Amino acid sequence: MSKGHEAENPLMPVTARGEATRRKILDAAEEVFGELGYYEASISEITRRAGVAQGTYYIYFHSKRTIFEELVRDIGERLRADMRAAIAGADNRIEIERRGFQAFFQFVSSHRRIYSIVQEAERVAPDAFYSYYHKISQGYIRGLQEAMDEGSIRQLDPEAIAYTLMGIGHFIALRWLIWPPESGQKKEIDELPENVFNSIMEFITHGLSLSAPEHKAP
Amino acid sequence: MSKGHEAENPLMPVTARGEATRRKILDAAEEVFGELGYYEASISEITRRAGVAQGTYYIYFHSKRTIFEELVRDIGERLRADMRAAIAGADNRIEIERRGFQAFFQFVSSHRRIYSIVQEAERVAPDAFYSYYHKISQGYIRGLQEAMDEGSIRQLDPEAIAYTLMGIGHFIALRWLIWPPESGQKKEIDELPENVFNSIMEFITHGLSLSAPEHKAP
Repeated sequence: MSKGHEAENPLMPVTARGEATRRKILDAAEEVFGELGYYEASISEITRRAGVAQGTYYIYFHSKRTIFEELVRDIGERLRADMRAAIAGADNRIEIERRGFQAFFQFVSSHRRIYSIVQEAERVAPDAFYSYYHKISQGYIRGLQEAMDEGSIRQLDPEAIAYTLMGIGHFIALRWLIWPPESGQKKEIDELPENVFNSIMEFITHGLSLSAPEHKAP
Repeated sequence: MSKGHEAENPLMPVTARGEATRRKILDAAEEVFGELGYYEASISEITRRAGVAQGTYYIYFHSKRTIFEELVRDIGERLRADMRAAIAGADNRIEIERRGFQAFFQFVSSHRRIYSIVQEAERVAPDAFYSYYHKISQGYIRGLQEAMDEGSIRQLDPEAIAYTLMGIGHFIALRWLIWPPESGQKKEIDELPENVFNSIMEFITHGLSLSAPEHKAP
């Protein structure tokens, strides 16, 4: 797995102004890759939208692929930071899942184009893609393992359950937040419908919770 | 949603020999798109591998995009046929899920390249992509709704649960059958590890099953 790409670019500035310029270029790249896809996107379109000269761009990034990889890494970092903030203070695993899913759907609904960028990375920048999911899964596996060790959720393979929960979030987000609405449904849903969220949380809660002891002698 | 693409090609032959040639071209296309991706794949590489002349190709397909769309439709049809066959005769929803998931993982492990083709379709041929998932979800929603109406599984939003289960299958397949093994793990896993399958089935079973009545007066 890749360790991120900062080390590849020793020229990256650490001043606040340099960081602001770099952020502006990354935000423009998120827009351009999201709209046009990797193959149709161009560095000149990114610099045009960021309002910087092409020379400035090359201070921060080597190529179209470098900025694409950096963007996937950056998206993953922002998502994980949002989820960490959301679950801070939650005192049981079910509550952590509820807050984590809420933060995830909130992140996707305010960064809809991210999804097509991350998915496209599987072919365009596979190391960045695998690293994105690997990093999310590592925190997830650790948290599930702890809850299983404490006996507060069902004993299952923690990695299998981490990918199960990631898959649920992914497909629910695609269907209700990313893909165009199915014909006959109203357009422009900004948030996940409440009954959808409640249904998946009920399913997950029962999937994870310990069964009530049945026919057991005390 | 698209209705499939047969109607767009009135020249499609219905003789057994014509059908065999068409199948040969589709199989070659699955190989080429799977290896190279849509953008790098070429009709000449497809006809070379299929062992047919370019002129023959154009009897069956108009363009690179046409055959790509047809391939996504064809993959969806084969997957749904395999899953229908696997669940025939199962007499409760949990058993249907178990057999359906088994058939799904079996299909993915013997058609690994399919996944990158279907995922790439989101950008390259969105109608074919949405239609692929829409058709899978429709059968799923119907089956879950019936089981909920009979009272044999928990009452939840059937569409939310259909996408939940599709998401689980998708991510578990990606992690253990499609993506390269994580460093330190043995390579070339041909089947889903049994403990992974058992963990997800236990999670799904508890997620779907009716709770044992708790503290209820008889």
